Formats: sequence, C-alpha cells, structure tokens
Amino acid sequence: MAGKLFLLPMLLGDSSIDLVIPHEVKNQIISLDTFFAENIKTTRRFLRKIDKTFNIDGSTFIVLDKKSDHAALSEMLQIIKNGKDAGIISEAGLPGIGDPGSKLVEMAHKENIQVIPLTGPSSFVLALVASGLNGQSFAFHGYLPVKQPQLDKQIKDIERISGQQNQTQIFMETPYRNNQMLKQLIESCHPGTMLCIASNITTSEEYIKTKTIQEWKKTQIDLHKKPTVFALLKQNR
Amino acid sequence: MAGKLFLLPMLLGDSSIDLVIPHEVKNQIISLDTFFAENIKTTRRFLRKIDKTFNIDGSTFIVLDKKSDHAALSEMLQIIKNGKDAGIISEAGLPGIGDPGSKLVEMAHKENIQVIPLTGPSSFVLALVASGLNGQSFAFHGYLPVKQPQLDKQIKDIERISGQQNQTQIFMETPYRNNQMLKQLIESCHPGTMLCIASNITTSEEYIKTKTIQEWKKTQIDLHKKPTVFALLKQNR
Repeated sequence: MAGKLFLLPMLLGDSSIDLVIPHEVKNQIISLDTFFAENIKTTRRFLRKIDKTFNIDGSTFIVLDKKSDHAALSEMLQIIKNGKDAGIISEAGLPGIGDPGSKLVEMAHKENIQVIPLTGPSSFVLALVASGLNGQSFAFHGYLPVKQPQLDKQIKDIERISGQQNQTQIFMETPYRNNQMLKQLIESCHPGTMLCIASNITTSEEYIKTKTIQEWKKTQIDLHKKPTVFALLKQNR
Repeated sequence: MAGKLFLLPMLLGDSSIDLVIPHEVKNQIISLDTFFAENIKTTRRFLRKIDKTFNIDGSTFIVLDKKSDHAALSEMLQIIKNGKDAGIISEAGLPGIGDPGSKLVEMAHKENIQVIPLTGPSSFVLALVASGLNGQSFAFHGYLPVKQPQLDKQIKDIERISGQQNQTQIFMETPYRNNQMLKQLIESCHPGTMLCIASNITTSEEYIKTKTIQEWKKTQIDLHKKPTVFALLKQNR
C-alpha cells in the first residue's frame, strides 16, 4: 500500500516553534523519516529544534528545489508508492507557495496518493489578514521582475487591476532588494494607494504597517535583509 | 497606552485543537478577555475547548459581522485605544479572509495600533498547497455569484484568466450549494481544466483531490453540507 504525502510547515525565521507549529503537527513531523527538503541543513536544524533526540542519521533527506527535474521527482514519488510516508518541507513557511514542491504534489494526485497539508505559518496569509486590506478578493504574484522597465510596468499593471477589481495584490522581494522595491513602489504608484509592509513576521522583530504611498514616502524605514511581504490596494474613493 | 489588536485563528470544523492551533497561540487567546467575534456562541465553545476553566462570564464578547457599521467598529477600536488588548475571531479559520474583520484592522492601522496576526488553519491555503496547482501565482475570489447567468460567466472568466496567466483560481461556496457548484463547473469549464476539490480540511473527513473536469464528470461525489474550497487551473499544454 502506498504511503502518504505530508506537506510540512517550517518556521518563517528565528521564531518560537510553539508560536507557529501546532503540537500534533510537531508529532507528525518527527514521526516521519523521509523528507523532501528545499534546504536539508535548515530541515535538520528544525527537526532537532522540535526534538533534540530526533534520529537524523536514520532519516532520509532528498533535495527538492527548483532544479529537481521530472526524473528526480519520479524517484521521490516511487518512495511513497513503495509504502513510505514522506513530507515535503520548504525553506520557510508552507511548501508549494512561492517555492517548488507543487509539482510533486501534482504527480501524487495522478497516482492517487493521499496528500495531507499540515497547519503552520504562511507569511503572505499573516501579512494579508494583518494588512486590513481586502481579504475577500486578492492575488498573490510571488516575486516581481527584477529589472526595469519590466518592474515598473508590472507594479503599474497590478496597481491598476487592484483598483479595477478592488483586489489586494500580494508579492515578495529578495530581502536584500527590499529597500529598492519600496523606493520603486513609491515612484510607480498613485500617492493614495494603500501599501502594507509586513517584515519579520512571527519573530520578535515583527513589523506590520499599512499606510498610503504618500505616507510611506515620509517614513524612514530600513527593510534591508528583512524577509518582507508587500500588499497593495488602490483606493477608488 | 493603547492595547494591541490580535487576529485569532478558529478551528475549521470539528478538528483537534492541537492539530491546528500552536501552543503559544492558545495561551495568547486565553490571556485575553475582550473578543470581537463573528459568532459569539462558537467563540465561547472554542475558548472552553482550549481551557475548561476559562472565565467566560468575566470576558467581553462583541459581535463583529457584516452588519457591523462604522459606529460599531469605532466603539470596538475605542476599547483598544483605552488600553485593552483584544482579539478578532472569525467563525472559521483566520479573520479577515472571506469574512468581515479587515475593516477594523484598517481602522487600527490609521490609529497606529499594533496588529498581531496569530498562526492557525486557513482552508484556502491548505487547499492551495495540497492541490498541486500553481502556488507561485494565484487569486482568491471568496464566493462566486449565486445566480445565472452571472455564475456561468464568472466561472468562464476566471477559467480564461487562469489559462492566460497560469494563475490558480480559488473560491468557495455555501456548503449546501456545493453539489450545484461542481455541476456548474463541469458544465462551464474545458474538459482538460484541472480542478481541486478540498472538503472538510483538517477534520477526520478530510478529502482533497485534483483531477481534470473530464475526470470529475465520471466521479461520484457528494459535497452536500461539507465545507469545501475549489481551486481551478486551466492547462495550456
């Protein structure tokens, strides 16, 4: 009989495990011995943090990242088909959002393997609910283009759509480019557009504020190297 | 000094608390004595489930639902401005997604009140990650229109957008209309479009499957009164 594929949560940063991982999810994680991990080092550290006595050496860790091709994913799937329960684990947050992993889940459905998502922190969801922006309609874009003029164009496009559809637009940036991103948003967007900046979510350094672009222009803030989610909504009032 | 506004998670159904609510979040919830609740009865039951000895009678419960007007929200905000910590709690999942609550959060930001989102289960996120559909780009629409021809038109619109932008489209339906919704999706969508049906998430009755519309057409399934998230992605292959 085939095993099950668990989707495991990971911490978003240096936060307390018991603030973001439910007790039974911890138990489920350390009951496994097979992990498809975006980052094996982080995964091992996380397992040890949950349970100091966790049998790292007796477990199997296979890298599942953007370089994993179909053959590699098929091998992972075969392990489950052979009867092993296994978990996909991302570098931060839930697997399959803004990271690889969903490809293996897609293949699992085709093979009728049971997929079980476990609760944990998701930076974009926590940012969204804390933003006060529209939570009835929203879109997530992952990472925006790095280069101009594509970045300016994409920001203007999603701002326009957000106004037309009253749809909150959520995206991220590589932490060392966050200050540039904020500068670009201030340049590209309408002064009245609402922007939520949510940094270091679930850590002791958590910072979540929603202001207009005009207000952000007057705000001194350093986002360098701080994991940040941006959420934007154009006001039609 | 003003209090803080916590965004509290709620169970998605009859599931184990320790499967979906982290230990420190439980402690934070029962340390509060002021709750802005979509459903007071459900909230009280939840508090008792976390802690049998919780002082229900010594706590304040104020309804925050779609009928709450600006004056009512201002009164809630005033309680926090007067120095009380308070929590918004929805009927299921995280507050502010597919339910009221974000309006109060928006007002809190304007008053510089600290907003703290706590981790818990979110049915649309768990459905998304377990769907195997695109988690790099997706949109959430809440509830689709109830009546024809608007429903058929909206389904076709979001299916078209999902194909054009390779963007997963997520929506919900009132549980007693789920079977009708599935019938409509089968009628309105392309046979090759992928559809994930995720029901009773985090409960012992959890059911999550992704198939093509064509395959769903041949599948016997009863979704009546089962809380369900639908996720759809048109294939361009």
